[in-house]
Amino acid sequence: MGNCIVPYCDGPKNTNVRWTLPAVCFVWQTAMVILFGAFVRYNKEVDAHWPETKIHENITSDIENDFYFRYPSFQDVHVMIFVGFGFLMTFMKRYSFGAVGFNFLIAAFGIQWALLMQGWFHHIDSTDGMIKIGVENLINADFCVASCLIAFGAVLGKVSPVQLMVMTLFEVTLFAVEEYIILNLIHANDAGGSMVIHAFGAYFGLAVSWVLYRPNLKESSQLNGSVYHSDVFAMIGTLFLWMFWPSFNSAICKHGDGQHRAAINTYLSLAATVLTTFAISSLFQKHGKLDMVHIQNSTLAGGVAVGTAAEFMLMPYGSLIVGFFCGLISTLGYIYLTPFMERKLKIQDTCGIHNLHGMPGVIGGIVGAISAAAQSTSFKDDFKHRTPAVQGGYQAAAMCIAVSFGIGGGILVGLILRMPLWGDPTDDNCFDDEVYWEVPEEEDSADPVLQYNNHTVVNKHAEV
Amino acid sequence: MGNCIVPYCDGPKNTNVRWTLPAVCFVWQTAMVILFGAFVRYNKEVDAHWPETKIHENITSDIENDFYFRYPSFQDVHVMIFVGFGFLMTFMKRYSFGAVGFNFLIAAFGIQWALLMQGWFHHIDSTDGMIKIGVENLINADFCVASCLIAFGAVLGKVSPVQLMVMTLFEVTLFAVEEYIILNLIHANDAGGSMVIHAFGAYFGLAVSWVLYRPNLKESSQLNGSVYHSDVFAMIGTLFLWMFWPSFNSAICKHGDGQHRAAINTYLSLAATVLTTFAISSLFQKHGKLDMVHIQNSTLAGGVAVGTAAEFMLMPYGSLIVGFFCGLISTLGYIYLTPFMERKLKIQDTCGIHNLHGMPGVIGGIVGAISAAAQSTSFKDDFKHRTPAVQGGYQAAAMCIAVSFGIGGGILVGLILRMPLWGDPTDDNCFDDEVYWEVPEEEDSADPVLQYNNHTVVNKHAEV
Amino acid sequence: MGNCIVPYCDGPKNTNVRWTLPAVCFVWQTAMVILFGAFVRYNKEVDAHWPETKIHENITSDIENDFYFRYPSFQDVHVMIFVGFGFLMTFMKRYSFGAVGFNFLIAAFGIQWALLMQGWFHHIDSTDGMIKIGVENLINADFCVASCLIAFGAVLGKVSPVQLMVMTLFEVTLFAVEEYIILNLIHANDAGGSMVIHAFGAYFGLAVSWVLYRPNLKESSQLNGSVYHSDVFAMIGTLFLWMFWPSFNSAICKHGDGQHRAAINTYLSLAATVLTTFAISSLFQKHGKLDMVHIQNSTLAGGVAVGTAAEFMLMPYGSLIVGFFCGLISTLGYIYLTPFMERKLKIQDTCGIHNLHGMPGVIGGIVGAISAAAQSTSFKDDFKHRTPAVQGGYQAAAMCIAVSFGIGGGILVGLILRMPLWGDPTDDNCFDDEVYWEVPEEEDSADPVLQYNNHTVVNKHAEV
Repeated sequence: MGNCIVPYCDGPKNTNVRWTLPAVCFVWQTAMVILFGAFVRYNKEVDAHWPETKIHENITSDIENDFYFRYPSFQDVHVMIFVGFGFLMTFMKRYSFGAVGFNFLIAAFGIQWALLMQGWFHHIDSTDGMIKIGVENLINADFCVASCLIAFGAVLGKVSPVQLMVMTLFEVTLFAVEEYIILNLIHANDAGGSMVIHAFGAYFGLAVSWVLYRPNLKESSQLNGSVYHSDVFAMIGTLFLWMFWPSFNSAICKHGDGQHRAAINTYLSLAATVLTTFAISSLFQKHGKLDMVHIQNSTLAGGVAVGTAAEFMLMPYGSLIVGFFCGLISTLGYIYLTPFMERKLKIQDTCGIHNLHGMPGVIGGIVGAISAAAQSTSFKDDFKHRTPAVQGGYQAAAMCIAVSFGIGGGILVGLILRMPLWGDPTDDNCFDDEVYWEVPEEEDSADPVLQYNNHTVVNKHAEV
Repeated sequence: MGNCIVPYCDGPKNTNVRWTLPAVCFVWQTAMVILFGAFVRYNKEVDAHWPETKIHENITSDIENDFYFRYPSFQDVHVMIFVGFGFLMTFMKRYSFGAVGFNFLIAAFGIQWALLMQGWFHHIDSTDGMIKIGVENLINADFCVASCLIAFGAVLGKVSPVQLMVMTLFEVTLFAVEEYIILNLIHANDAGGSMVIHAFGAYFGLAVSWVLYRPNLKESSQLNGSVYHSDVFAMIGTLFLWMFWPSFNSAICKHGDGQHRAAINTYLSLAATVLTTFAISSLFQKHGKLDMVHIQNSTLAGGVAVGTAAEFMLMPYGSLIVGFFCGLISTLGYIYLTPFMERKLKIQDTCGIHNLHGMPGVIGGIVGAISAAAQSTSFKDDFKHRTPAVQGGYQAAAMCIAVSFGIGGGILVGLILRMPLWGDPTDDNCFDDEVYWEVPEEEDSADPVLQYNNHTVVNKHAEV
Repeated sequence: MGNCIVPYCDGPKNTNVRWTLPAVCFVWQTAMVILFGAFVRYNKEVDAHWPETKIHENITSDIENDFYFRYPSFQDVHVMIFVGFGFLMTFMKRYSFGAVGFNFLIAAFGIQWALLMQGWFHHIDSTDGMIKIGVENLINADFCVASCLIAFGAVLGKVSPVQLMVMTLFEVTLFAVEEYIILNLIHANDAGGSMVIHAFGAYFGLAVSWVLYRPNLKESSQLNGSVYHSDVFAMIGTLFLWMFWPSFNSAICKHGDGQHRAAINTYLSLAATVLTTFAISSLFQKHGKLDMVHIQNSTLAGGVAVGTAAEFMLMPYGSLIVGFFCGLISTLGYIYLTPFMERKLKIQDTCGIHNLHGMPGVIGGIVGAISAAAQSTSFKDDFKHRTPAVQGGYQAAAMCIAVSFGIGGGILVGLILRMPLWGDPTDDNCFDDEVYWEVPEEEDSADPVLQYNNHTVVNKHAEV
């Protein structure tokens, strides 16, 4: 690193996270150990004493353990969280380490904290006051973390890993409260989390980004874009999200037809979204050329929007209609809304989460309210014996709560993140892995590509 | 895009798909919505009214829903379709967007159209005339799309997305007819689709490529090759296809031992193929160096060839023998047959699908016929009470039908695709993402790292 | 290849594997066919005659076939073996083909040989002397191969594919013996293979690397490092290993709570490891910058270390504690121990397997011994009616056996690999795909990397 010639290669002093990042990681992980020791135990399907109790549970053999009916869904969701979200954000030319690495860090912390927070709200065993966990808790923890990773998309490249850890701590906490209100107090249905996960996470992230607005960011904008291979990496994320979304929306549905239906509805909605995304992307570009940003992101909007209603009798054509309009709206959002939001509303949304999670999440809430109101009596248990119309009203209320929580919480947390002690990058440092990562082989030109250019330059000189 | 210096960077006028691509996507997706509205409903395991009917079905609990015994297989197949086929084709230096993107587009359209076409042939509920879908239909739709993606491999880089959509429309239609004849009229067995999917898809694609022959293609041949990292991307596709092929061949087998056996036979056949592929690749290259093209493709031939017979009592060593010879034949095909076909038969096969799907598919049909003829009485239900020898004859007939349908259909569809309204690329434009995609950072020195360096150099100059 | 200008581009004569590699592949694959023909049959859940026997087995329907309760775990493990290990090793700038390709080759051979070796030791049917295989055998074969791939990590880039095949042949054989001693004679528990797989594989690989020590290796050290995109490729391997590790550790556990518990313990341990790895990586680097080597590898140490004890009642906080310390120790190992081992002990460990598998494997054995000694009576069947304390002693003994077998076997096999007939690369050739692979586009300069070479030439000319 001797002859460092570009101004930002080592970064100014304030981006040094050598003490803050280890401190945050150690303290929080130690806290997790202590809290898990005090509060978390296995539930009865996980505990070795289960054989003695299963007679009372009408479970006739070990293979009826819920593990076998949830774990494959869990693994699909797990892939979405770590590979899906992680690689979707690798599209930038010099922020792939940060995208996939920080995604890994905050998800690994978030799932532990979510097990605790969601446990306290939902899984306290009244006999001993302990949180009892099983495979379904792992799925719910992944769901909670998904909302944090959505918010990460809005601030990608503009915050330090310490800020991300702080943001995750607060967002998981708020998520658990919001989830409790929507699912347990209002008794809204939200199988795939259109409202609870996507709308909340997106508006939270946008609010944070609004508070952290950087007016001079365009100076580092030369790094705010993709290169050929980074766009291919991002497609790994896109495809794993797209393929496993049916598992996401059906993962915690009721066994049997509910889970089956949620998977099929999501599958159909996503298929329709792809076609309308390609259509709009081509129609609104010069020369009809497709834009990778749209293909990477808007093709997923149908999965978000069908989340709340996936378990309902939405019907196959209903799912297609939802997907049809989401591909359209989301792609138009990338073309018109994102630039508008940056210029006029001072919201810099790196990954365009408003188009992928925000608007589709709200649409999902509305679709959920309408389809709840249109359900037959089969769902009366889910609706707590309300009439479908009344349930539709509650669904709409839930959607408003999710968005409000997101915006309010995001502003609050954004203000915390503005405190000058988290090592955030300067405007020049944004979207650059150099700040927080040892990037291979900078100075001695061992990277062939650098050589390439040196070579070009040499040639030019030779010509002169 | 100001100082565009290469002649094809914006593309000649006829490659502009700004109106045709959106039109095709919108019209066809709208048609899907209408047709699904008119014809498609949930089957009884998906429908919310199922609890009332399950007593009649001998299903004792929600966890006996077929979802739990098919969905993991479905997800593996789904990964093969979107990541497997998509990334396998990213090997070219400048066609990775097209490979993974168009694969995504035509698969997303194909699965919808396949649900309808296969539904009309196989899943009409006689009580109300509706197509009733469940998780098994999703698998079959993915299977049908696989044949379209195989054909895509032959024309990769030489056709427009509009042509691909047209091709998919017709190929899915033909597939459904061919599948109906082979499975329902002839009553051949074809668990993994060696004949129905692979042989049909491959000869269809080759016929299309023959009709669309481009005599002057070698001019753009500098783009018809790989770079280091694109070969690594392609290995993602190879490995996900290879790993999940046991799920592919067993996905729609009968529950129990049939599914178990199909998975094991496929696993063994694929393992053997890898060794013989490496052997031939090294033996026939100068200096014994391995060729990535062989490793990426021929290692998969064993999965194709064991498809028909996978459910039979092929025995572990039988599977190994099939894999052994397929690796050998497929790799030799890449070395000798593909160049011969291009020179003499005027068939340009971009991905070498004849070696990966064509020949192995035919071998699979033959292996299926032989092993059917050698089965014991355990399969008498599958064989419609024919003797094994007679069934073997029917299997062979099925194979001929698949190949004939492929060639005939391919010629027909090829002629449709030659009509001058689909925006296909000129010879100069082939294998180049520039034609249909916004490729990042074209004019100002392409790769960021270069940029970075140019910038450095400029700075240095400035300092001087 | 006409104007070959760099000294190693074609490689010296002795690296030509044109006859040895095909010979090894053909002979061994032929041997597999013959041995499978003589010894391997389907077990009764795979065999078509199973329906007649299942009445005696208390299996009431086809969906109780073990396939449905093991196959999803098998597929996850399969992904770890081929994509996980394969891509984890692609981090080097010019050895990605070798990493993912040779990983593919030796795994495909290893699983066949492991089915035989493990079959002879564990799955002989006494009625007919045949090895009877089912889905659980496939998992065990993948496990065995994992130990070979771990050892591959130590010698990555320094051996020929022929050497790797020879190493795999012997290592699988030794593994089966070691596994038999530990599981069937000593009756130790080792669900996730901390001892049997990881400690054995790591010390085996390190011993081989020690015997094959290359004192002048630093001369080719310019290739022994990563480039930006190769580090992103390696993260694909890391994440698929990390996500599916709960499936690995639970894959062959007893049905029901045991499998459920193993998955949850592993999930928690891995989550904790991520945070401590990030902490140490930042704390010990200049400027607090994170090192991709640590993130790619040390984040996985928690999965290794919890392997033996995963099935026990380790408790959620116990798993977190194990993960906490493993992230810490493993990362410190990369910073201090790996350089020390290379300088002082003459052990060149390319991937740092001692930090990822060696130390965490030993820790896993110790944790297993301690937690076995602390178990309640629920495990008395697993412990063969020994007291928990006695079982703890046997567990510790098993760990010593695994390490001893690894070191002893590794030295022996290392001596065999030193024989001058396997086409191993010279020191100059190490870490370079050029030796065994046709690397794309050398002469015509379309690719930057080509330029690299050209540039070298220019420099040389300049020196002249």
